[in-house]
Amino acid sequence: MQPSAKEQGCPGKDCATCPMRDQCSAAAEKGVLTEITKKILIRMQEVKHKVLILSCKGGVGKSTVTSQLAFALAQRFSHDSTTPLNIGVLDIDLCGPCMPKMMGAEDEEVHQSAEGWSPVYVAENLSVMSIGFLLEKKDEPVIWRGPKKNGMIQSFLSEVAWEGLDVLLVDTPPGTSDEKISLIQMLNATCKPDGAVLVTTPQDVALTQIRKEIMFCHKTSTPILGIVENMAFFCCPHCHVPPGF
Amino acid sequence: MQPSAKEQGCPGKDCATCPMRDQCSAAAEKGVLTEITKKILIRMQEVKHKVLILSCKGGVGKSTVTSQLAFALAQRFSHDSTTPLNIGVLDIDLCGPCMPKMMGAEDEEVHQSAEGWSPVYVAENLSVMSIGFLLEKKDEPVIWRGPKKNGMIQSFLSEVAWEGLDVLLVDTPPGTSDEKISLIQMLNATCKPDGAVLVTTPQDVALTQIRKEIMFCHKTSTPILGIVENMAFFCCPHCHVPPGF
Repeated sequence: MQPSAKEQGCPGKDCATCPMRDQCSAAAEKGVLTEITKKILIRMQEVKHKVLILSCKGGVGKSTVTSQLAFALAQRFSHDSTTPLNIGVLDIDLCGPCMPKMMGAEDEEVHQSAEGWSPVYVAENLSVMSIGFLLEKKDEPVIWRGPKKNGMIQSFLSEVAWEGLDVLLVDTPPGTSDEKISLIQMLNATCKPDGAVLVTTPQDVALTQIRKEIMFCHKTSTPILGIVENMAFFCCPHCHVPPGF
Repeated sequence: MQPSAKEQGCPGKDCATCPMRDQCSAAAEKGVLTEITKKILIRMQEVKHKVLILSCKGGVGKSTVTSQLAFALAQRFSHDSTTPLNIGVLDIDLCGPCMPKMMGAEDEEVHQSAEGWSPVYVAENLSVMSIGFLLEKKDEPVIWRGPKKNGMIQSFLSEVAWEGLDVLLVDTPPGTSDEKISLIQMLNATCKPDGAVLVTTPQDVALTQIRKEIMFCHKTSTPILGIVENMAFFCCPHCHVPPGF
């Protein structure tokens, strides 16, 4: 069910000479190196590993898993170095960005430099980029249709000066729609992601959706690195007995 | 931040004569009665009250609130009648439809008749429509960009033969994006919805998002009927003491 170039109204001519190539996902789909994909390629080559955090269902803890994974990785060292790993977090949930809050950087702002957008550093080796840092009013909803969201994701991938990362964790919105299609198309056309960490909860409704997410990964040739079963039980703070006992 | 007609590539000519009017949201925005809006108007005039269930954040229980509200309303009577209210549920969460499961109608199918799509009846006075009933494989993800999703929502509003409803509850996906913009534009251009029930949980991250949802309702002139604070506490099944005591 992935939209073809034809379905998107593409006349089917050569992408490399098409005047719309920089706004069009069909060019990225075909692996044509447009100006934007060239810029994304340069930025993403500075990142050793790119890991996506995915879940079709909302509220299962994608952002929590992303932030905890980021903090945990930032305390580790690479095999051949005595300096800790350099970790970046990119939040592409444009309508509901919660990474600033999760990373404890709510009041920070992103600055523009000659190198591009400078992400927010929550530790010396841990940086974050989110649309939450760019909004003037924190309560303002982002009421954008697909093309505008795709443009923002292009900018995130091509404009952020990560300055050499070991791991970039990408937190995504729920669903299998514009943001995720664009992200994976743009990455597949430049530097493929290492894979995806899927997050779910044990409820039937969440499991149905995780099966869809697995199919989504297969269809987009995204390797699955693992599945986190979040909120598997709740240990009562009063009697300390986990349910089922 | 609502996308203007100009931003969507509209040449700004008269919508009523524009050949793209049926595919274009700008026409609906301006209240031009295209063929599609005329069809939606006819269908929606058969529905007395239209209530949207909204939340910017996923996993807060929109679908659960929708289904429980539907079952509860279906047991009530109108003031001037001895027959119970006629209730319909429309699930426009195209990427993660869980209404079939929530309403206990997982294996049902939608049938086409001369009147249009016949929704699935879970009780004599309670009918449901969801993309979940239309998918051949239940685990198949719906990987659609905005325009294709908008087309599906248009079809849901214009093709489903509800056969005279007292209340139509519309379950929506998380975010403030294509599906919700299209739904509200299409309804505002035809029969305005009565209002929205907002769903949230007490966590800080969810509250930030509910403020965005309130702003979204103000911007789209959608009255807020109430806010449900879901999952406000968890009562341990072992010691039966709610947390905080």
